[in-house]
Order: sequence, then C-alpha cells, then structure tokens
Amino acid sequence: MRVRNKPWAKDYIEDHADKMVTEPEPLKGNWQSRFPSEQPLFVEIGTGKGQFIVEMARQHPDRNFIGIEIQMSVIAAALKKVVASGLTNIQMVHTDGEAVNTFFDAGEVAGLYLNFSDPWPKSRHAKRRLTSPVFLAHYADVLQPEGQIQFKTDNRGLFEYSLGSLNNFGLIFDGVWLDLHAATDGVEDIETEYEQKFSAKGPIYQVIAHFPKAAE
Amino acid sequence: MRVRNKPWAKDYIEDHADKMVTEPEPLKGNWQSRFPSEQPLFVEIGTGKGQFIVEMARQHPDRNFIGIEIQMSVIAAALKKVVASGLTNIQMVHTDGEAVNTFFDAGEVAGLYLNFSDPWPKSRHAKRRLTSPVFLAHYADVLQPEGQIQFKTDNRGLFEYSLGSLNNFGLIFDGVWLDLHAATDGVEDIETEYEQKFSAKGPIYQVIAHFPKAAE
Ligand SMILES: C[S@@+](CC[C@H](N)C(=O)[O-])C[C@H]1O[C@@H](n2cnc3c(N)ncnc32)[C@H](O)[C@@H]1O
Ligand SMILES: C[S@@+](CC[C@H](N)C(=O)[O-])C[C@H]1O[C@@H](n2cnc3c(N)ncnc32)[C@H](O)[C@@H]1O
Repeated sequence: MRVRNKPWAKDYIEDHADKMVTEPEPLKGNWQSRFPSEQPLFVEIGTGKGQFIVEMARQHPDRNFIGIEIQMSVIAAALKKVVASGLTNIQMVHTDGEAVNTFFDAGEVAGLYLNFSDPWPKSRHAKRRLTSPVFLAHYADVLQPEGQIQFKTDNRGLFEYSLGSLNNFGLIFDGVWLDLHAATDGVEDIETEYEQKFSAKGPIYQVIAHFPKAAE
Repeated sequence: MRVRNKPWAKDYIEDHADKMVTEPEPLKGNWQSRFPSEQPLFVEIGTGKGQFIVEMARQHPDRNFIGIEIQMSVIAAALKKVVASGLTNIQMVHTDGEAVNTFFDAGEVAGLYLNFSDPWPKSRHAKRRLTSPVFLAHYADVLQPEGQIQFKTDNRGLFEYSLGSLNNFGLIFDGVWLDLHAATDGVEDIETEYEQKFSAKGPIYQVIAHFPKAAE
C-alpha cells in the first residue's frame, strides 16, 4: 500500500504532474513548452495557497503564469486551485525561489510578483528576505529588460528594508503605494490570502520597480 | 514715522540683520563669514517658524545652520526664536529655496533638511514640490559629496511621490522610515511645529538619501 503511506500533498502533486513541476532545472529556457500558447511569462515567488496567481491567470489569458512555493503542503493547496480553475496558462513549481537563475534563462521572465514575503525581522536573517541583494541579483539574471518586480506587504519593517534594498541595488521605481487599499489611481490589486486575512490591521505597502538597462 | 507704517515682520528683520539674510546671492561661496566658526553647513528649506533648525543648532554646536523660508511673516517668527536662543551657529535666509544654486557654491552645503514641505497635491503643480527633479538638480549642485537630504512628512501622497522622484533622479537611500515615531532604531527626531501639531493623525514618513558620486 505504497500510496496510502504517502502524505496527501505528495500524492496529489504526483497525480497532477501536468500542472506542477518539481524538478525545474531541465526546463531552463524552455518553459513555454509547459503551456498551450507562447505568451509573456509572469512568476510569483512564495505563492502560498495560490489565490493571487490563479486570479491573475484568470484575468490575463494572454499571459502565462508560474507560482513558485517552497512548502509542499502549501503548494498542494495552490495546485488544487489551479486544477479547479481549469486554466491552462498557469503552472506551479515546488522549489526554492532563490535559485530562479538556475531554472530560468536570461530574459525568460516578463515580470515578477512578491506578495507578503516572509519578513525575517532579525538583521542576521536579512539575506533570506526575498528582496535582499542575493535574490535581486538572481531576479536581474532572469527578468527581461524593463521587466517589473511588483512587491506588496503589510510588514512595515520589511517594506522599509525593501525600498532601501531595491534602491541601493539600482532598481528604478515605477510606483510606490503606502496604503494600497486607499489608492485612488486605479492601480490593480488582486488580493492574496494573506492580504484578505491581515490587511484590516494596517496599510498594505507596494512598490513596482525595474532593473536599469545594462547600458544605463 | 516711516517705521510705524511698516509691518512688524519687516521691522524686526531689519533690526536683526546680523542673524538674517534677505539678499543671499552675494554670499555665494562665502557663507562661513556669517558665523563665528567655520563648521559644516546644514540647511533647512521651508523652515517655517524655526523650531527644528533652532533645536538642531542647540544640539549641534559643532555645525552651522541656515533656515530658508519664503514667507516673511513666518521667517520673522523663526528669527525671534533664533534671537531668543542666543545661538551664533544659526542664520535665517528669506528667499525661495528653489534658487539654492544661485546662492550656494558647489559643495558648500553639508546636508539638507526638508520638513513637512507643502504637498502640492495636484499633478500639474508637481514641479513646485521641494522633492521634484527641478529642486533635486539644484540640491545636487550645492551638496558636498555624500551630503544627505533628510526629508520627513506626514503627507502620504507627497512621500509616495518623493520616494519615486528621489529614486528616479539616482539618489541612494540611506534609510526609510514609514512610522518615524514608532522607530526603534534610535534615529534622531527633532520635532517641527507642524509635526507636533499634526502627527497624531497618522504616521510620519522619513527618507535619508544622498546623490551618487559623479563617477558612479
Ligand atoms: C507569508 S506567506 C504569503 C503567501 C502568499 N503570497 C499570500 O500573500 O497569501 C509567504 C510564503 O512564501 C513562501 N516562501 C518563503 N521563502 C520562499 C522561497 N525562498 N521560495 C519559495 N517560496 C518561499 C513560504 O513558504 C510561504 O508560503
Ligand atoms: C507646511 S510648512 C512646514 C514648516 C516647517 N518645516 C514645519 O515642519 O513646521 C511649509 C513651509 O515651507 C515654506 N516654503 C514653501 N515653498 C518654499 C520655497 N520654495 N522656499 C522656501 N520656503 C518654502 C512655506 O512658506 C511654509 O512655511
């Protein structure tokens, strides 16, 4: 009874290998092969239970989407949403987002989403933050020219850090919101699970930015 | 009775010409002549009634300070504080801060403060904001290398704009605070009149940044 002894998540993932990648490296440069149409590829790192990325895929049929999540039980819940949606322009990837440069080619990614990333408040853990220079260097490797990073969080300390980190890395800000839910400029806001659960407590911060051209 | 017919502010300013400059251009490159000791020169633009800059001068006797204010009646109130303080390391300048490059020499200013600058919320007035590119270009002309701009405000829209404007101009962020009064990192906060009056309503935002070296 091999199957019974395995956790639910692992089983479910194995049964939906068409929607879910667990070994991303061999797909480097070839991710479009996972989708019916070749379309700009947008990636979320730390996708959690997938509400944001599935809704994005629904609203933007002219783009392909990938949700990356490091926790198996969490991504299995996201995968369930993907399966239930019936959408074909979305794939899940179970891996560590820090390694994006090992499984995406230069320019393969059109845009990157970071939503309510783990704050890692202690400064000795700063390099684990998804907006730390280590991560930014890898994002720079895979984003197409002018490709944007869109980052939102309710964590003040993480946002303060991230504005500094992105700026110091040379990213160019396209927009900053210090209370996204009060924004009157019509900015798109697809809510995440975390956002719906916690945003009553305080403002949601957001920054959209892109890397300078190599020539700049 | 010439004196009686003049407004109080003008009189008071004329009586304290040793503490107050109304024609700054001739002093370009020579501001240290207005102070007993040659010391790094820090400037506030839009100094209002002067509480911040006078307190700074009190706490930092090893620096010289200048408060710039465009409204005569307002700077007269600041001048009163300067006179009452007995401090010799502070001068007031009644002029438009946009023109700093016409009355400071390259590198003459060690640091610049902007506190609760007028928000000019309409986008067609954006270039009047003290953090707009027009102003930043002039600040760049007069600040010494690594000289910092320290900007705080309670105005969310102005701060969102300013983070983008400073970043897009190429300034390097040294720190960002999204709730200065809740900061636990020991950052100095000398309160301004405006800050004491209005900060109960919401957070005070602050950014400290410097221009890149010409070589960068
Ligand atoms: C606070 S949750 C937010 C989830 C979702 N974005 C939301 O807003 O509801 C952060 C998620 O990021 C995942 N995560 C953290 N570090 C990661 C990494 N290096 N690579 C991929 N996922 C990561 C965590 O497992 C967790 O599910
Ligand atoms: C909202 S008040 C804040 C005053 C003070 N910094 C405070 O925090 O209490 C802004 C001040 O900036 C002054 N100001 C606006 N534009 C200016 C300019 N271009 N040059 C000098 N002062 C200016 C205004 O006259 C006003 O006194």
